[in-house]
Amino acid sequence: MGAVYHASGKDDMATFDLFIRKLPKDWGYFVANGIEDAIEYVTNIKFEKEDLDYLTAQGFSPEYISFLKDFKFEGDVYAVQEGTPVFANEPILRVTAKRSQAQFVETALLNMINYQTLIASKASRVVTAAGDSKVVDFGLRRAQEEDAGMKGARAAYIAGAVATSNVKAGQEYGIPITGTMAHALIMSYQTEVDAFRAYVNTFPQNGTLLIDTYNTIEGAKNAGIVAKELEVKGGKLGGVRLDSGDLMDLSKKVRQILDAQGLGYVKILASNDLNEYSIKELIDGGAPINGFGVGTEMITAKPVAAIPGVYKLVEDSDGAKIKLSPGKKTLPGKKQIYRQFAEDGKFTHDIIALEGEEVTGLPLLELAVKDGVRARAKPALAETRAYALSQIAKIPDKYRTVAAPNGFAVQISGALDKLVSQLETEHQR
Amino acid sequence: MGAVYHASGKDDMATFDLFIRKLPKDWGYFVANGIEDAIEYVTNIKFEKEDLDYLTAQGFSPEYISFLKDFKFEGDVYAVQEGTPVFANEPILRVTAKRSQAQFVETALLNMINYQTLIASKASRVVTAAGDSKVVDFGLRRAQEEDAGMKGARAAYIAGAVATSNVKAGQEYGIPITGTMAHALIMSYQTEVDAFRAYVNTFPQNGTLLIDTYNTIEGAKNAGIVAKELEVKGGKLGGVRLDSGDLMDLSKKVRQILDAQGLGYVKILASNDLNEYSIKELIDGGAPINGFGVGTEMITAKPVAAIPGVYKLVEDSDGAKIKLSPGKKTLPGKKQIYRQFAEDGKFTHDIIALEGEEVTGLPLLELAVKDGVRARAKPALAETRAYALSQIAKIPDKYRTVAAPNGFAVQISGALDKLVSQLETEHQR
Repeated sequence: MGAVYHASGKDDMATFDLFIRKLPKDWGYFVANGIEDAIEYVTNIKFEKEDLDYLTAQGFSPEYISFLKDFKFEGDVYAVQEGTPVFANEPILRVTAKRSQAQFVETALLNMINYQTLIASKASRVVTAAGDSKVVDFGLRRAQEEDAGMKGARAAYIAGAVATSNVKAGQEYGIPITGTMAHALIMSYQTEVDAFRAYVNTFPQNGTLLIDTYNTIEGAKNAGIVAKELEVKGGKLGGVRLDSGDLMDLSKKVRQILDAQGLGYVKILASNDLNEYSIKELIDGGAPINGFGVGTEMITAKPVAAIPGVYKLVEDSDGAKIKLSPGKKTLPGKKQIYRQFAEDGKFTHDIIALEGEEVTGLPLLELAVKDGVRARAKPALAETRAYALSQIAKIPDKYRTVAAPNGFAVQISGALDKLVSQLETEHQR
Repeated sequence: MGAVYHASGKDDMATFDLFIRKLPKDWGYFVANGIEDAIEYVTNIKFEKEDLDYLTAQGFSPEYISFLKDFKFEGDVYAVQEGTPVFANEPILRVTAKRSQAQFVETALLNMINYQTLIASKASRVVTAAGDSKVVDFGLRRAQEEDAGMKGARAAYIAGAVATSNVKAGQEYGIPITGTMAHALIMSYQTEVDAFRAYVNTFPQNGTLLIDTYNTIEGAKNAGIVAKELEVKGGKLGGVRLDSGDLMDLSKKVRQILDAQGLGYVKILASNDLNEYSIKELIDGGAPINGFGVGTEMITAKPVAAIPGVYKLVEDSDGAKIKLSPGKKTLPGKKQIYRQFAEDGKFTHDIIALEGEEVTGLPLLELAVKDGVRARAKPALAETRAYALSQIAKIPDKYRTVAAPNGFAVQISGALDKLVSQLETEHQR
């Protein structure tokens, strides 16, 4: 497309919106994420010699290759803040640049924002389902390759997970890391008690013992023995983890076994292909589980796996643009989202309006990149997380459930509605 | 776990198997993939100073940090060849090394092999469904971050896709790339015909026009006009692409429109959230579609999204090991897979046996890493693809359907069966 625009001299200013067409079934909101990576990306585009050589070999014209030699992004990006709750069809990022530049960034922006928003949103659902219990990311081994494991750990943390088992993500982003053992550790010692002793010798404070390798009830008793030994030495067992079987039943029995020995402080953690639905069931059923290790389903957002984020032309030097393909209609023109709040601070509805239109409410799109240069400082991760959690808390309760309606009110302003009708009429002519 | 093993002086030789517990519903086989990345990974492990500093700050002991300073992988890896069809519970990779080393690689190996096997398997299903029509990877924008887009494009190509829209994957791996336009290109010109003309001016040979921006039937007529103009100039339109609406109905109508103008050579491509099921329906219904651009569902394997690959201790200096957690039983000991063939070359069944046991058949696990060094040359991508396709063709037909049973016969040898019983009895004691 870049080659076509270039050859036909079409490099006027153009504006594209990035938005997500539809909320998945049961999802009441998205948590926009990946915005910071998007900003880093657009402000650092550069073709290296080997890239140009490859494109030359693919048959692109010398004129186009020469154009790419000095290619960079010099446009403006408006975006919601990382961690902002958004709804279907709301522009979460808006790019205005020369057409060649605005078009070029499409795929990368979608790749980053689709995945990171997917996982932040999924993790927020899991965290909500867990209520007062903690959620930890256990996903790396099932993540769709390394980047997903890293960015997914970050997205989950922003959305309320308290830690990750991904040590590299801890190192890279400063997310708290948490370790636990695999069954292989237990199987590496003669007896389960031997394995538990070896573990608490190394981690005398706050370690977690995996108790289901052979038999969960026996495992709980063995953990009790080791916890009492540890008390004598001044250590303190942190918790036990269940990773198979009927978690509802086992967690109650294990709690009793621990409590009977005065080990009320030893927490119960659970894992084993959990998701927001199974966690809600456990919590609703009174399972005394203090923390959930959530792997596969949080890091891949299975079965949703992808959200339909798209990047669409909404304006160029000819004016506002609309796409009319069945089921894929777009909202034309440069737009802003205005969020409306109730007296208790909760969101009531959003209004998507044309830029410059007089609408009350909190504008969500802010200048992030100006003339190709970052226009707002990159927030620290803790700051992003605090912001995200404060905003998620303002979503009306009915949209923050495991089986949520996805009908949060997103209104279209009068002027935008008029523009849509006008462009439809023009196309029909 | 490494810290615990180190502190308790437990660094005997241990063997771990990497296998996938279960085939997803409707899947008859896996295409093992990610093996080459796994080999690259284990032969290049190294802790940098900043890694050690981070781990020190996390509270690991000076003794353990000092141990990690010179840590590298010095063990052996047996693995199936990249692109080999495998079934549930078959070890596709087997690691024997000092326990610290064999344990260390678990998460990275699972991350790579789980995802790349997932996508190669999914893509193989899509390619099978498409029959004589071509499949192209269109997934990058919906891939779960960049690595997934890259490795997924490679996996899909190995499994039979003919090209990718991911230019960087083309550059990195030598996969054929294919371009097409987005609706934004059409909308960037005054009329659809103007847009088509601009496109074929730049790509006079074998270009593909997207014809559904405003109305697919009108789009086909406009494509016809431009194709006839192009003929005069010595160019040749490659195809038209449908990206919305009823693909069955539209493809037939578009074929008629093109054929009526003598444009029988212009191919019809289709996209729009396709998967193996919808493609099979189109093919079965006689839709004259020559190629499918498959995005989201192939690059994420939605709704499956992850396969349950695991990495389990099967032997150490104490002998063979078994795990007995409910639903998570493992096969103990160092093992080999022996593949059995019918006279027509198709697979009949596999036998999982203990290493050294006398079993006929083709052994699938081959030495890939010896004493920490690569033991077999990295095959070229074309070679891997040819091997994979030749092997997939040997899977019995009933397992190569869109709704396949997943009961391909994987037998356990006599000696292995005996070992399982013996270890179960010991544990019960």
